[in-house]
Amino acid sequence: MNAIIDLSIFPMDKKGESLSPYVARVLDVIRASGLKHELNPMGTCIEGEWDEVMRVVDACFRELEPDSDRIYLTIKADCRRDREDGMNAKVRSVRNKQSRP
Amino acid sequence: MNAIIDLSIFPMDKKGESLSPYVARVLDVIRASGLKHELNPMGTCIEGEWDEVMRVVDACFRELEPDSDRIYLTIKADCRRDREDGMNAKVRSVRNKQSRP
Amino acid sequence: MNAIIDLSIFPMDKKGESLSPYVARVLDVIRASGLKHELNPMGTCIEGEWDEVMRVVDACFRELEPDSDRIYLTIKADCRRDREDGMNAKVRSVRNKQSRP
Amino acid sequence: MNAIIDLSIFPMDKKGESLSPYVARVLDVIRASGLKHELNPMGTCIEGEWDEVMRVVDACFRELEPDSDRIYLTIKADCRRDREDGMNAKVRSVRNKQSRP
Repeated sequence: MNAIIDLSIFPMDKKGESLSPYVARVLDVIRASGLKHELNPMGTCIEGEWDEVMRVVDACFRELEPDSDRIYLTIKADCRRDREDGMNAKVRSVRNKQSRP
Repeated sequence: MNAIIDLSIFPMDKKGESLSPYVARVLDVIRASGLKHELNPMGTCIEGEWDEVMRVVDACFRELEPDSDRIYLTIKADCRRDREDGMNAKVRSVRNKQSRP
Repeated sequence: MNAIIDLSIFPMDKKGESLSPYVARVLDVIRASGLKHELNPMGTCIEGEWDEVMRVVDACFRELEPDSDRIYLTIKADCRRDREDGMNAKVRSVRNKQSRP
Repeated sequence: MNAIIDLSIFPMDKKGESLSPYVARVLDVIRASGLKHELNPMGTCIEGEWDEVMRVVDACFRELEPDSDRIYLTIKADCRRDREDGMNAKVRSVRNKQSRP
């Protein structure tokens, strides 16, 4: 099944520090996967087959694990049979129905 | 405090139908608030003072309430003192730290 | 509309400290509201009318705001017309359908 | 790393039906895993090593996939090195710090 997830993942034991270096490392891992993705201010959307997407989530966790003692993450997933290019289609579909596009 | 939230809200009792008309109505409400916002494939990021942002969440709920018997919503919020233009700053800060920008 | 939410809220700037004192303060605020609620290992479920529940969310935020510079929160809400005692009903309904109760 | 997650997963294409039979099937899968878990009104908390917990998430998805065309899920995870019996410890730790236990 096609899956689109929104992933937020960050260490919780780096509190004086900015979290952006950790988010940047996670984004490098996502990019290396080759899956379609899109950074937003609160997370990163990733699209692929369920298996592929969950492998990337695991890789993101592995990236932070060696130098973190506590990691927080949230995932929101919308999985749909027979969908392709879902990230673009979802946004386009909403835009087309707004009162003023 | 400055708040950036990611909001997803949709009726759960419209299951044969596409949800995009409902998301479009919600997005119209968000736009009417005048707050900075950004649609993504899994939700909409909204930025403002905590009070302002929560008033918009309430307005989105009110928009769907009259013709929905069941509504599901998720909110993820990052609130920070003395931050301005946080949505742009967060994304820029991550981009600047990636191995290949 | 009857709303059941799962709320997690914690300061992100308390380096090295346990978060449980903050969660305890939030739980005191929730309890003071008089609304039905239930602490779980990852959040607290709260049930009431949409307005009542959102007022409690705001009160929880106000509790942490004075001594936090950064607050993270997640809300997951299931809102349903004409439902009463939804927290108990939802759990009971699932239990009744398990293969071995 | 020890992981505690809160998982919600349900089909989005079951118009008019109660979702509890699907949640019951998911709960049976979680129980079969042998991992510590706890149903709450908005999801199920599961505790184990990161790998174990993510295998259960995958098994829950596989349970619903054959007869669902659209699946929605949310995960919230708190992962911590050198923690054991975290679900009980977290709740106890908060209870001990409340103003009236």
